[in-house]
Amino acid sequence: MDRQRPDLDLYEKRGTWVTRVPTGRSVRYVGFMAHSPARNSRSASPAAPRRGRPGYDLESLLAVAVTVFNERGYDGTSMEDLSRRLGIAKSSIYYHVDSKEDLLALALDRALDGLFSVADEVKSSDGPAIERLERLVRGSVHVLAERMPYVTLLLRARGNTTTERRALVRRREFDQIVADLVAEAERDGEVRPDVDPAITARLLFGLVNSLVEWYRPSRRPKEPAGSAPTGPIAASELADAVCTVAFDGLRIRGSANHLAATAAEQDRDMKAVRQ
Amino acid sequence: MDRQRPDLDLYEKRGTWVTRVPTGRSVRYVGFMAHSPARNSRSASPAAPRRGRPGYDLESLLAVAVTVFNERGYDGTSMEDLSRRLGIAKSSIYYHVDSKEDLLALALDRALDGLFSVADEVKSSDGPAIERLERLVRGSVHVLAERMPYVTLLLRARGNTTTERRALVRRREFDQIVADLVAEAERDGEVRPDVDPAITARLLFGLVNSLVEWYRPSRRPKEPAGSAPTGPIAASELADAVCTVAFDGLRIRGSANHLAATAAEQDRDMKAVRQ
Repeated sequence: MDRQRPDLDLYEKRGTWVTRVPTGRSVRYVGFMAHSPARNSRSASPAAPRRGRPGYDLESLLAVAVTVFNERGYDGTSMEDLSRRLGIAKSSIYYHVDSKEDLLALALDRALDGLFSVADEVKSSDGPAIERLERLVRGSVHVLAERMPYVTLLLRARGNTTTERRALVRRREFDQIVADLVAEAERDGEVRPDVDPAITARLLFGLVNSLVEWYRPSRRPKEPAGSAPTGPIAASELADAVCTVAFDGLRIRGSANHLAATAAEQDRDMKAVRQ
Repeated sequence: MDRQRPDLDLYEKRGTWVTRVPTGRSVRYVGFMAHSPARNSRSASPAAPRRGRPGYDLESLLAVAVTVFNERGYDGTSMEDLSRRLGIAKSSIYYHVDSKEDLLALALDRALDGLFSVADEVKSSDGPAIERLERLVRGSVHVLAERMPYVTLLLRARGNTTTERRALVRRREFDQIVADLVAEAERDGEVRPDVDPAITARLLFGLVNSLVEWYRPSRRPKEPAGSAPTGPIAASELADAVCTVAFDGLRIRGSANHLAATAAEQDRDMKAVRQ
């Protein structure tokens, strides 16, 4: 391979841009467009405007396909539906991919590759398990925010096709990484042992995954009358909020009600630490 | 009305059992079966076994319909599909309801009525806002666990039909009750002010709602090798776990790393409370 655009899953092989299509345990590389990405990008010469219908590269075609899959369900979407929505002939879609399931595979991998790149980074890093867990949560929130339509599709996959079942296997691998980190942090005495670690792990990523149901980068959820900020929510603010609630809880540690109830317990803990 | 079975949404009117079907702002009552619930219940005389295909009362018909809606999507399910799955003629379904949308309305109300009965109970109770909020979360987890297929259908409603849009209006009312309670608890100084209360409210019910994705009363999620209990998870254990994580966080308050980092801060808080 000469050049790579791994951010777009694009690789140049013998002068042709290709993308990866998973087949069983390996991937095959398929060519997907007549022009190099540069020719299709916004930096293309303004002196040569395109005529007629807008063209699609695989990336923009995939983005539209995923939107339609999320609206109508993958099973409920035909290539005919996609061709209508894209405003191009079915043959133009087949120029890029062999089947609807290829589009699904590319979309699900977009989500999973994002999550696994965070998991790999965390696995190869040092520090206490609870800090690595927090980095995994924070990174996953960023992946969700940045690849939301792809992650939404992944979370809705029920295993109706080979491609979905393959994605569910990878998703379970990811869940296992989370569960192992939670268990390790519990052995370190950093995560509460009164909740089953498998349940803790599920709740933690239940919280993260539920973001796809309401988070839109451009707007804040509705406030009760008379309160607080409005405007967009950045992914980093969201990641902070998720980590704060998940790791420290929404109850204020120093609140009057809470301290009165737990003062004796805290005294004991503090003494133990300082001795 | 002479007799009522509000647990099944059944009411007796002029000698006939009816159920409520919402129409716009009001409800209409429609008759739905030839026999009283007692005749169809398990207490029916064992001396008179039924012959041929099993009969369905509205309740069991609704349960099957909701299962199919969740599997195939409401839009992707036809009355033909329901009739095949139930093993009865379409006319037998129409004996109970006028349309597929009537079944959807009954199912979504089953979920919403459960959630609002918890909200109403909490609204009419006393105590600090944070305690009422915790009761609301705990009660909602029980509703989710007990009416899971109905709540799952509710959470997937996207507003494609009048009935779904009406359900979404009620769901937003419920979300507003949660947001108002969070804001009140924040004014009381019991909920952390460093997270926007609207985001806190979303995260809190994101956590609760995510249960439908993995919770099955009969089995525990997979454990990392060598750890912890197996067997079913009772709704009360689940409610405890959700409240513990949401309100107190999964980090142990007295852990060495955490206490070392926050000892000074806690000292200050404790002093303030004891003065």
